[in-house]
Amino acid sequence: MNTMVLGIAGGTGSGKTTLTKRLKERFGEQISVISHDNYYKRQDELTYEQRCLTNYDHPNAFETELMVEHIKALKAGEAVLCPVYDFSQHNRSDDFIQIHPAPVILVEGILIFASPELCDLMDIKVFVDTDADVRILRRIVRDVKKRGRTLDSVVTQYLTTVKPMHEQFVEPSKRRADLIIPEGGKNPVAVEMLIHRLESHLASAGKEE
Amino acid sequence: MNTMVLGIAGGTGSGKTTLTKRLKERFGEQISVISHDNYYKRQDELTYEQRCLTNYDHPNAFETELMVEHIKALKAGEAVLCPVYDFSQHNRSDDFIQIHPAPVILVEGILIFASPELCDLMDIKVFVDTDADVRILRRIVRDVKKRGRTLDSVVTQYLTTVKPMHEQFVEPSKRRADLIIPEGGKNPVAVEMLIHRLESHLASAGKEE
Repeated sequence: MNTMVLGIAGGTGSGKTTLTKRLKERFGEQISVISHDNYYKRQDELTYEQRCLTNYDHPNAFETELMVEHIKALKAGEAVLCPVYDFSQHNRSDDFIQIHPAPVILVEGILIFASPELCDLMDIKVFVDTDADVRILRRIVRDVKKRGRTLDSVVTQYLTTVKPMHEQFVEPSKRRADLIIPEGGKNPVAVEMLIHRLESHLASAGKEE
Repeated sequence: MNTMVLGIAGGTGSGKTTLTKRLKERFGEQISVISHDNYYKRQDELTYEQRCLTNYDHPNAFETELMVEHIKALKAGEAVLCPVYDFSQHNRSDDFIQIHPAPVILVEGILIFASPELCDLMDIKVFVDTDADVRILRRIVRDVKKRGRTLDSVVTQYLTTVKPMHEQFVEPSKRRADLIIPEGGKNPVAVEMLIHRLESHLASAGKEE
């Protein structure tokens, strides 16, 4: 199979999840999505209290090597068992999701362009760029309204880890992008451009099968 | 004819001319290019010395209304007579270039996204984004080696008008872009993406004819 690997990165609240959804809605099973978030490291050796102190916005929080292996396997036409992270326990669960090979592998995550090994596997690197004020507003609404967190805890986490790690790792990783999409899933012209690109890949991948 | 208007903006030396050339090489007569540079205002009432003092990096230096009219005419399937600017005389010449209607009208210029009227006519707005240091290096090489200008004159012009006007008008106009392409014509992934987008437009435009 002729596989295209599409990377979608961007800060918290940038609109990358919406963009991923738009593409998934359009292409269904022809796209397999693999999320960096599922590759947070297993932390069995730490207590719950210690795990609460982990900096989840730093590249070292991820087992990126495993994700690299999985993407290589998917490109080779093999299904993989992707770990599932239990955010309530701050640890990897014992569950797995099976991810099937597909003509398009969509890799998404805030920090994926911070890894040269992940970047090397990608055919198209898209960075979703949205102003920091809009992003924190979206995050507050999501975390407070949908996840039941207090406003204070969201603000503290944002200022102590999310923002400094964004500036140290996410923003500089934008330099590795092939394409920068303002507002992500809410940018209809850019969404349509990506759809046309994937359609033409799928048409040629279909011919080669 | 189903016409797509593609705008390509970006600072001096950003790579928009290279990008335009790539697309023109690929699509030939199916693309008509219209350059904002040709629409610098006629300045017959000024002496040569006065014309040398005009700020050519300010939106007011252009007769943008005429360009808007011409793009509307091209969309309506009519050929237009585009003025030709004589940069050695700092004035519009008496020559014209005939621009023919085509399924894709490529509008290019540093300041085109600074005009809401021009933006309203565009289906896809691409901003070519390149670091300021790389851009000034390209401009120096071009102006000194190819246009025989002195280094001092390039530096003075850059610092007195090019850079301040970039910061005041060009950089903010990036917010109107649908898509930001780092490095322009030297970004093969983005060039290919645009090519696929235009190919699929041309395929559908062909069917409707």
